[in-house]
Amino acid sequence: MNPDRPLAQAADTLREQYRAVRAHSLALAAPLSAEDQCIQSMPDASPTKWHLAHTTWFFEAVLLQPHTHGYTPFDTRFHYLFNSYYEALGPRHPRPQRGLLTRPSVDEVRAYRAHVDEAVEALLGRAVEGAWPQVEAIVMLGLQHEQQHQELLVTDILHALSCNPMLPAYRSASGPSLRLAAVPASMRWLRHAGGRVEVGHAGGGFSFDNETPRHEVLLRPFEIADRLVSCGDYAQFIADGGYQRPDLWLSDGWATVQAQGWRCPAYWLAPDDPRLALHGAGGGGNSAGWQVFGVHGVRPLEADAPVSQLSFYEAAAYAEWAGARLPTEFEWEAASSLPGIRQLTGHVWQWTRSSYDPYPGFRPLPGIAAEYNGKFMVGQLVLRGGSSATPDGHARPTYRNFFPPAARWQFTGLRLAREL
Amino acid sequence: MNPDRPLAQAADTLREQYRAVRAHSLALAAPLSAEDQCIQSMPDASPTKWHLAHTTWFFEAVLLQPHTHGYTPFDTRFHYLFNSYYEALGPRHPRPQRGLLTRPSVDEVRAYRAHVDEAVEALLGRAVEGAWPQVEAIVMLGLQHEQQHQELLVTDILHALSCNPMLPAYRSASGPSLRLAAVPASMRWLRHAGGRVEVGHAGGGFSFDNETPRHEVLLRPFEIADRLVSCGDYAQFIADGGYQRPDLWLSDGWATVQAQGWRCPAYWLAPDDPRLALHGAGGGGNSAGWQVFGVHGVRPLEADAPVSQLSFYEAAAYAEWAGARLPTEFEWEAASSLPGIRQLTGHVWQWTRSSYDPYPGFRPLPGIAAEYNGKFMVGQLVLRGGSSATPDGHARPTYRNFFPPAARWQFTGLRLAREL
Amino acid sequence: MNPDRPLAQAADTLREQYRAVRAHSLALAAPLSAEDQCIQSMPDASPTKWHLAHTTWFFEAVLLQPHTHGYTPFDTRFHYLFNSYYEALGPRHPRPQRGLLTRPSVDEVRAYRAHVDEAVEALLGRAVEGAWPQVEAIVMLGLQHEQQHQELLVTDILHALSCNPMLPAYRSASGPSLRLAAVPASMRWLRHAGGRVEVGHAGGGFSFDNETPRHEVLLRPFEIADRLVSCGDYAQFIADGGYQRPDLWLSDGWATVQAQGWRCPAYWLAPDDPRLALHGAGGGGNSAGWQVFGVHGVRPLEADAPVSQLSFYEAAAYAEWAGARLPTEFEWEAASSLPGIRQLTGHVWQWTRSSYDPYPGFRPLPGIAAEYNGKFMVGQLVLRGGSSATPDGHARPTYRNFFPPAARWQFTGLRLAREL
Amino acid sequence: MNPDRPLAQAADTLREQYRAVRAHSLALAAPLSAEDQCIQSMPDASPTKWHLAHTTWFFEAVLLQPHTHGYTPFDTRFHYLFNSYYEALGPRHPRPQRGLLTRPSVDEVRAYRAHVDEAVEALLGRAVEGAWPQVEAIVMLGLQHEQQHQELLVTDILHALSCNPMLPAYRSASGPSLRLAAVPASMRWLRHAGGRVEVGHAGGGFSFDNETPRHEVLLRPFEIADRLVSCGDYAQFIADGGYQRPDLWLSDGWATVQAQGWRCPAYWLAPDDPRLALHGAGGGGNSAGWQVFGVHGVRPLEADAPVSQLSFYEAAAYAEWAGARLPTEFEWEAASSLPGIRQLTGHVWQWTRSSYDPYPGFRPLPGIAAEYNGKFMVGQLVLRGGSSATPDGHARPTYRNFFPPAARWQFTGLRLAREL
Repeated sequence: MNPDRPLAQAADTLREQYRAVRAHSLALAAPLSAEDQCIQSMPDASPTKWHLAHTTWFFEAVLLQPHTHGYTPFDTRFHYLFNSYYEALGPRHPRPQRGLLTRPSVDEVRAYRAHVDEAVEALLGRAVEGAWPQVEAIVMLGLQHEQQHQELLVTDILHALSCNPMLPAYRSASGPSLRLAAVPASMRWLRHAGGRVEVGHAGGGFSFDNETPRHEVLLRPFEIADRLVSCGDYAQFIADGGYQRPDLWLSDGWATVQAQGWRCPAYWLAPDDPRLALHGAGGGGNSAGWQVFGVHGVRPLEADAPVSQLSFYEAAAYAEWAGARLPTEFEWEAASSLPGIRQLTGHVWQWTRSSYDPYPGFRPLPGIAAEYNGKFMVGQLVLRGGSSATPDGHARPTYRNFFPPAARWQFTGLRLAREL
Repeated sequence: MNPDRPLAQAADTLREQYRAVRAHSLALAAPLSAEDQCIQSMPDASPTKWHLAHTTWFFEAVLLQPHTHGYTPFDTRFHYLFNSYYEALGPRHPRPQRGLLTRPSVDEVRAYRAHVDEAVEALLGRAVEGAWPQVEAIVMLGLQHEQQHQELLVTDILHALSCNPMLPAYRSASGPSLRLAAVPASMRWLRHAGGRVEVGHAGGGFSFDNETPRHEVLLRPFEIADRLVSCGDYAQFIADGGYQRPDLWLSDGWATVQAQGWRCPAYWLAPDDPRLALHGAGGGGNSAGWQVFGVHGVRPLEADAPVSQLSFYEAAAYAEWAGARLPTEFEWEAASSLPGIRQLTGHVWQWTRSSYDPYPGFRPLPGIAAEYNGKFMVGQLVLRGGSSATPDGHARPTYRNFFPPAARWQFTGLRLAREL
Repeated sequence: MNPDRPLAQAADTLREQYRAVRAHSLALAAPLSAEDQCIQSMPDASPTKWHLAHTTWFFEAVLLQPHTHGYTPFDTRFHYLFNSYYEALGPRHPRPQRGLLTRPSVDEVRAYRAHVDEAVEALLGRAVEGAWPQVEAIVMLGLQHEQQHQELLVTDILHALSCNPMLPAYRSASGPSLRLAAVPASMRWLRHAGGRVEVGHAGGGFSFDNETPRHEVLLRPFEIADRLVSCGDYAQFIADGGYQRPDLWLSDGWATVQAQGWRCPAYWLAPDDPRLALHGAGGGGNSAGWQVFGVHGVRPLEADAPVSQLSFYEAAAYAEWAGARLPTEFEWEAASSLPGIRQLTGHVWQWTRSSYDPYPGFRPLPGIAAEYNGKFMVGQLVLRGGSSATPDGHARPTYRNFFPPAARWQFTGLRLAREL
Repeated sequence: MNPDRPLAQAADTLREQYRAVRAHSLALAAPLSAEDQCIQSMPDASPTKWHLAHTTWFFEAVLLQPHTHGYTPFDTRFHYLFNSYYEALGPRHPRPQRGLLTRPSVDEVRAYRAHVDEAVEALLGRAVEGAWPQVEAIVMLGLQHEQQHQELLVTDILHALSCNPMLPAYRSASGPSLRLAAVPASMRWLRHAGGRVEVGHAGGGFSFDNETPRHEVLLRPFEIADRLVSCGDYAQFIADGGYQRPDLWLSDGWATVQAQGWRCPAYWLAPDDPRLALHGAGGGGNSAGWQVFGVHGVRPLEADAPVSQLSFYEAAAYAEWAGARLPTEFEWEAASSLPGIRQLTGHVWQWTRSSYDPYPGFRPLPGIAAEYNGKFMVGQLVLRGGSSATPDGHARPTYRNFFPPAARWQFTGLRLAREL
């Protein structure tokens, strides 16, 4: 009997996962030119190339350099260029200037990836019993990290392309789809009895530290919608003057609406949008002629598709208009197992009415991963679910995504809840 | 037997309260010149004169105009000038420009106050059974509102005076004291068993809508400090490099420390502060020569006094440094009845680790008071307790004060908590 | 025969001048409340109180401290507070924060003035032969300096009052007038033959260093308008779409028009201006219902009065629209002696098409006066003439006033010129 | 005899010029990757690709569309994307967002160039007598325009590369050189007698409208340096505390020094510059260890090379420190024919002490070229000479280059002058 069998098998499995995740990043970048991969359209977004390099740096800095004897970095300068925010790992290139890095080129970044991949795979191949748990944990964290950046890669490049008045498509319609699937228009309220409920990750399988510790909360009885708010729903809110009625909005939200001139979701184009002239998009469509920019370029609005690219402010204002409210993150989590609930994940992340606070007893992971989640726990709101840009297998019902309330370049929408 | 007796008595009582609160506002302004009362030192602060006028406008707009036949406004233009943020009550003077209103003068604002006081007292004098509950509720709300502005008046004028390099005193040391009382240096941990706990206002007496509905929460066992963190404690944090260690700070906090050049609480002056030359303050003092600006001007730091004028970011970093954490607002509320707990109120508001979210089932008050609290429920943190600038009788253990995490011109400090 | 007679007489004369100028500053502040005198409505403007103190500081810092044995400063901290921009005299209070100085009070500033006046007059009383020329030169410079601040005091307080939506009047209509006198509507072109022309100050009497050295320039023949552009003229420019036609504007000017939303001179109010509702000004007037804010508050536009509160950009655009151009500063100076020319001074400063560059051979005054003019010689335009706010006897045809091209809170207008 | 011969010859000559200029633009872009060509490092700079497209658009919009029957635009959307600032030609893509145009790609822009080149050459091939003068004038203007952008292309990409902490080289040292030639260290003063001097373009050959009309000016006698200020000279200014002495600076200049933290020219690296660690540049060099970033990357400072990448503020401060001044643009022009004068062009543009004002009698060109020069005549300073990045044959002694006083990403330096 070979006691190493299980370890070798685990290492093989992990290597397969590693290859799949790493390959998926490159596949996401494949439709993009070198220029597309270089630019940064706002400080909150990062270039495609930067995502490809930063996720690689993560493996280099957290796995290879501390855990591999004799590892030779691909280029020591990359340590400065591609650190994101880890204070413990030294100074780094300023975030708003990531788009100024025309060098290294896309080709050099791909070579960087190959160099690191080779070293990681070699490390997995020599896995030994003692070191394995730590190696496995870091690789798992690195892959989850890369999956998060895969979603950001998509949302960031969409933002960049949305800044081009020609509104070019990220990928052709014949490619793998990121479209938001339409759903039946009818909406049903599902009832939850409330009471003492367990929330948070129960262990077994990967989770981030912010999902723990699992703990009990008390919920009042509530109702939650079985489906997401659709574009058609949201078009009614706009048509009813939703963006002109301060009583529907949180104070900061209303200030943002006025300061930014918002009058629809980030990627909707009204029929009088001057970019449509440049774009040459035919009119047509429904719901009063709205067009929507997305992964396949500009398309007529689909009334049944979930509304997306919404800020928390817009989600909350819509809910107020609809005579409802957003669910808390715990209501959402409790409702995720209700029979009949639909569109939990795979469409849009769903804003909740919960600020991103630590769970009772929360402690960050030790080491540099301590900076992963906990230090962002102020000024942000929790989103639950998962989107069409979330890699398969990445999300789970206890997953806590988070963004500031004005962010609206993500695949973000909402689901209604209400008191009983 | 006179059935009106109770109503007349209630009206008399309320009139006394009204007179006392209104007089207190004028007393707070008494040490200030007309110039002092006019300026606005930052968009978040308001001029003294504006506070005096705005609190008066509140009674005029919410009580007198809707509920008094034939009431003649003092000056119809004041409706525009002194509305703060009530969208339902029409357009208003932009907040950052409040300091540009040299007219009306302080004397005119006092005349405005007298005009409104006369009308309110007349209304109270004619109280009749049917209208009374509504009148009483509005007057109570107006008085609570004025008390909130009394605290802001003090913190705002302190900020204004702190911008003068001569650092003049708000009031002389012989006047009524706003000093933070010193406490014994020893600190004890008080234990709370956690479990199912009721929080929120139980009814009976005034409360704001954001304290309701009363509801149950589940708490884990925890320990909480019997006293506030003192200036001496905080000076150790500074001396230990607290403002230079990113690992202690939330990400937004660290960014603020660097962008603003923070190296101590807002009103502390290091021995090398150039303003001390202008001020002529003698050195002396303790804790490495810190001086502190406050209501009586510049004074040597008192090690036993509670630290004040802290942002949430600083409070959280201190707690991290101390190997503890901030209590949640519910832990604070539950602990407020623990035997041995000290300095609950009357010193500084205490930052909690709770974002300012709505309570389950929260509904704003009807009418214009709907804009009072609910619309600010995003991006802010809850503070509990009460400060030396909080008017007597205003605060209570269920009271939820709130400010953005970077705010530090308030009487704000902290109390530690920790897991068991 | 008494050899001291002429010196004593000169000293007496200068003392009279000193008293008159100093008294005029106080007279200008007389209509203003303490609050009015304290605020600063934008970084480019200064509070009335600051002007009163700064002009006093100038005598203290430049005359009394270096030239009077045993002079005791009124308050040594004022040296920091009221230095404007003299780097050689040490650090100073930041310009944008002048409005935060509620202390010293107006009364203290008046006491400061009296203290310095007493010392200056004493110094003049003991004038001795050797020191006299230097003392006289400094006093003269100090008085000219104060006269410049007298004009700024008026324009700055008007700007401050213009920020109050009630648009209060600086002084009552019955007080001493600062109104712009109307002139006959007809305009005549005056011809100048050009050629070799002397410009700059010829000596004899006071001048600033920037008017020297006197030198020759070559002018081409040109024509210049005998009068200023009037409000009626300018209203036609507006009515003809002047603020909507980029072809009329310099590039920076057009960018400013769009960024600031300019559609008329700074103090004009269109009939639909929301402030008119607050102000309660009756309609009436002429030229399409424009109202104009000025020293006496809001008045209907007077078509024959010179247009004022114009930026250089607007002046240049108007000239382009009128098929003319602005005169150069040398054309203006040469034309100032043409028979028939009107409104040279006493109405508005007149923008010229000359950048504020040094004259050939220009050297700044020695000592701290070196910082008076020369260091501002970039990025500004020359204005010639003098305004209704310029103190009597202050301006002269060689006087070079200067402001950045976007400035429009001064009494600034234009006179047309054209090629022959 | 063929009367068409001269026209055909002229057309042939112009076509050769056209081909040479157009090819030079592509040659300048040749060392750059697609990513390099896409980014915009500040609003004042433009991407390489944008320069390549905009200069092409100029021929399309000004020549082909108005003057060629049946011309088919390459892509009608480019009219919006690549208009720079011509208000008469409709709305345009905002300048600060030029770097967001990843599409069209570099390849598409090259195809655009080829398309337009073919049409222009065809137009030149069918030149007919009547239309020729206008066609020739527009092509000449278009080529001069493209040459101006060739210099900007180089300075803009240098700025972009300077924002990369690795400080990559624009071109390898073995390529065509853009290095600033060193000159002998000795400097001689050349005397000019002053008097009546003709300035401006005399006709015959191309000139821009801003060089006309030619006219007489009066100059005082003056001396001018026979060579440019060198890096070694400038290093002495720095070593003598030039960046710490406000008395040397114009007021706006000193404010800029402090706000931007300037302590040396834009592309100098002090020995303690953190980028040197990333760059790996060896120390060495001279003049206290300065390194300089340029077209060939980072090199040790060459003491004899002209100082470059200076703002006007720095040039004027240096001159003040040296006990001299900058020449006026007319002194420069008059001195350009003095025997013994060196480095007039081919090294750096030379800041003059002249604001960019219109010449007496200046009228802009008719048509859209009216927007070429005149509308920028405010707030800028004149530079004379020509730089190592100026295409051969582009500059001439009457040429008026202009930039705002704080600009310092150009090849800009200075030459001293002084009074006699």
